[in-house]
Amino acid sequence: VSMMRRDRLLLAATFTAIFSADLYFILLPKLRRMGQGSRQFCSCGPSNISLPGQGGLATPHLSNWTYVPPLGALTTDSTGSKLGRLFAHPLYNIQTPALGPEEKLLLVEQLMEYYRKKMSRWERHMKLYMEAAAVSNISVTEHEVTFDPDASWLKFHLGINRYALYSRDDPAVPQLLEDMQGMAVVSADYTQDEKALKGVCDCTQVVKPSGHHLKLALKMHNFAKAMFKPMRQQRDEETPEDVFYFVDLQRHNAEIAAFHLDRVLDFRRVPPVTGRLVNVTGEILQVTHNEDLRAVFFTSPANNTCFFAKCLYVCKTEYAVCGNPNLLEGSLSAYLPGLSIAPRISIPNPWIRSYTFTGREEWEVNPFYCDTIKKLYPYNSGNRLLNIIDMSIFDFLTGNMDRHHYEIFTKFGDEGFILHLDNARGFGKHSHDEMSILAPLSQCCMIKSSTLVRLQLLARPEFRLSDVMRESLKEDPLRPILTEPHLLALDRRLQKVLRVVQRCIRRQGRDEVVTKDFAKSTGKPQTATEMKQTR
Amino acid sequence: VSMMRRDRLLLAATFTAIFSADLYFILLPKLRRMGQGSRQFCSCGPSNISLPGQGGLATPHLSNWTYVPPLGALTTDSTGSKLGRLFAHPLYNIQTPALGPEEKLLLVEQLMEYYRKKMSRWERHMKLYMEAAAVSNISVTEHEVTFDPDASWLKFHLGINRYALYSRDDPAVPQLLEDMQGMAVVSADYTQDEKALKGVCDCTQVVKPSGHHLKLALKMHNFAKAMFKPMRQQRDEETPEDVFYFVDLQRHNAEIAAFHLDRVLDFRRVPPVTGRLVNVTGEILQVTHNEDLRAVFFTSPANNTCFFAKCLYVCKTEYAVCGNPNLLEGSLSAYLPGLSIAPRISIPNPWIRSYTFTGREEWEVNPFYCDTIKKLYPYNSGNRLLNIIDMSIFDFLTGNMDRHHYEIFTKFGDEGFILHLDNARGFGKHSHDEMSILAPLSQCCMIKSSTLVRLQLLARPEFRLSDVMRESLKEDPLRPILTEPHLLALDRRLQKVLRVVQRCIRRQGRDEVVTKDFAKSTGKPQTATEMKQTR
Repeated sequence: VSMMRRDRLLLAATFTAIFSADLYFILLPKLRRMGQGSRQFCSCGPSNISLPGQGGLATPHLSNWTYVPPLGALTTDSTGSKLGRLFAHPLYNIQTPALGPEEKLLLVEQLMEYYRKKMSRWERHMKLYMEAAAVSNISVTEHEVTFDPDASWLKFHLGINRYALYSRDDPAVPQLLEDMQGMAVVSADYTQDEKALKGVCDCTQVVKPSGHHLKLALKMHNFAKAMFKPMRQQRDEETPEDVFYFVDLQRHNAEIAAFHLDRVLDFRRVPPVTGRLVNVTGEILQVTHNEDLRAVFFTSPANNTCFFAKCLYVCKTEYAVCGNPNLLEGSLSAYLPGLSIAPRISIPNPWIRSYTFTGREEWEVNPFYCDTIKKLYPYNSGNRLLNIIDMSIFDFLTGNMDRHHYEIFTKFGDEGFILHLDNARGFGKHSHDEMSILAPLSQCCMIKSSTLVRLQLLARPEFRLSDVMRESLKEDPLRPILTEPHLLALDRRLQKVLRVVQRCIRRQGRDEVVTKDFAKSTGKPQTATEMKQTR
Repeated sequence: VSMMRRDRLLLAATFTAIFSADLYFILLPKLRRMGQGSRQFCSCGPSNISLPGQGGLATPHLSNWTYVPPLGALTTDSTGSKLGRLFAHPLYNIQTPALGPEEKLLLVEQLMEYYRKKMSRWERHMKLYMEAAAVSNISVTEHEVTFDPDASWLKFHLGINRYALYSRDDPAVPQLLEDMQGMAVVSADYTQDEKALKGVCDCTQVVKPSGHHLKLALKMHNFAKAMFKPMRQQRDEETPEDVFYFVDLQRHNAEIAAFHLDRVLDFRRVPPVTGRLVNVTGEILQVTHNEDLRAVFFTSPANNTCFFAKCLYVCKTEYAVCGNPNLLEGSLSAYLPGLSIAPRISIPNPWIRSYTFTGREEWEVNPFYCDTIKKLYPYNSGNRLLNIIDMSIFDFLTGNMDRHHYEIFTKFGDEGFILHLDNARGFGKHSHDEMSILAPLSQCCMIKSSTLVRLQLLARPEFRLSDVMRESLKEDPLRPILTEPHLLALDRRLQKVLRVVQRCIRRQGRDEVVTKDFAKSTGKPQTATEMKQTR
């Protein structure tokens, strides 16, 4: 039965995709030519193939090919919410096929077992620690921990599948955001990468070890874990133009905005992120069991509680972050499942930059670089290269030049999606569009059809990217997350992405450039094979 | 004859001082009481003992004791220049006694010999260096050097005496400023303190070695030498409140403003400083003979030429300074004579701060700290303690908390004046007045009469400190040097200094607090002894 249902879904998805492509590239231009100068066209009334009646035709942003296929009624949201209308749009309601067990990242039993083990280890540790602390006269706040099999973080982890980190309507995601905003923090510690440094600061490297970024792992009372990145920069400060991308500060608001952007683009490859005012005394200093972390706390001349990254304590005193006097803004990113139950691999980005002052990578000097990459495994088949291109579009929109590696879950193999982790170096300059970030798109001249049509949708006034982002970011407790210039830069950059695609199509033809991908099944139904990447 | 003349001058100065003190503290209040409500008083006409006719009485800033003794015609400047009127004021025209050879820092022959030696050493070095550079394919711009016995820097050095670094009307000072602004730079190098580090960066110290400040020594074609401190911060940026004073940036504009303030206060203990747009390529990179310095140059992402402090190259890439694309603002401070011909000693400030996060020095916790200091050599006699108090007033006005040591010329012994070197950490916050900087004044309750009357003069609307500073700073090529809030902070802080003095006088009486000092001779004429510090 499940197989039957899945096939039906695939069939529907296929039909939708083919129809949309036809409508989009063949019917629409014809209809447009017919209707030129005629306004009746806009009054056709809602029907499955009607043209958008809300200005889509009247105010085109690019040339005619930027129109989005209207798949069904334009809106099911009457509250005036553009974001609501966007998420109600048929393009955002294409069903993923039903998932086989191999297509989910985790099994319920496996995760529960993992959780229970963590829990009992914590309790043993806590008992010993509190005894030791009492002897050493260290005051540590002891918080109750609770085993909650319905915890939102568990549901988030269980929802991860080979298509995305979460499904569009998963109620666990808003619940997890809420939990991260409000739950009691029971412990704070350095992250694993910082511990790997073991306090050694390798200053011979131009690229700073991650320890320079002051990120911390916070554990909530139900064992939800989140990575905390403190505020380092005011919303209206721009990265100075002389700063290299690899020494730029990490921005907590960029981390938050990237989660929202990724969701608005329907990628769902960024783990949930929320802002939170963290009490650095009560929620870090008093709950950490790490002596090293406790040692970097101090009181500033303005009587605020501050802390350094360990490695910086000795060299860079001006690099502290401070509460006011205790509260400090930061981003909390939900942790992915532990590497022991959900291993990931980190792969160098083929379009990696030179992390030196003068070096240049091959892609920067060789215009035919993509031809080489296309021949190399794993970029010579499947979706990997298209996923890299998606990522480059995402990074171009945020202005993040620091994508040296990407991660995938090993379980899903080469067909798995790419995680968009670590986005805090985006949104540094609103006034500059770094076109080199788009190199994968402009050099390979390929894009997923599903990505393109959504970008086109977001270029339309009724879904304008800046508007839906503004609306989406209003949900965050630290709002406003982005300044207006950063929001408006998104629209400008989106136009530039579409222009690059347009240039590719002009040169190489639509079929070469736009890859049909609506049903991304690994199953082998007849209908799927003809839809998969056609290159 | 010279002795005779000197005695006459001393006599005149003494008379002036005694008269001014009497007028100030005794006559003036009486006259004021007599004249209360009567405007005739202001029409007495110009005479040596007339009261100021320009609002001095009408708009007192503090209570009656803030009036300044009007020593002669109020103004000789009719151009509307407050600064001109200030420098024409009798208080700014008290003659220093004629100087014996022991009261001058250098002898002409000695300095000329030194200059000639330096010159021939340079020529030998240059010859060898150009040969070596040719072999190693290093392109170095070779500039002509000229021996100029009339060079302004020589005149400045020859003018240094035991009273001050320069006399009020020394034409060498404006000439030296002009020379530093325009002369060709023939070489650039690290300063001696940075060389002393030998590239070793002692990051275990919380206090950063001076190498962190990117200062360089520039040599002009006539062998004038200046210390270059590049711009690190915009004029309108304020030091964040959580930053400790000892990790604050150095500000080139603070260095410039401090020279002007010191001159306006008539201390003349800061060597001449001017702003200059330096071409980092042509005037540093291409003229340096130091490989290490050449190695820290790089081109930024915005295609500007930048350089790091050597020590930072490995750790703190965001700490570079950049030209635009080559021109970079900075301060140029005239070098004092070399230590080999004019040795100085560096003495810890008794009111030194704890250069740690939590430490406190005794003066911060012990209100009777000054009683201890007054008993200790060299603070138990002579002017040293009064000089320290002068310096604390100067530092309070600029907001400089980083006065850990002070320097004096050994030649002048304990009676020599204190140099006010290294003022770049002033003017960090205009909105905050750091009262602890005034601790020497508020704890010792002593002030030189000469200092007090000038402060009172500068509190009056017709000489208002912010106005004369604004006017004085207009002469600098990098104008505006200080933002309006910083200028206005000077007035506010001046009032606070005067209020501290007032409180001391109320508690201990005028004679205990205000030390008559107008003639600061070390000679032994009868008239001088009774004027020296009376405590």
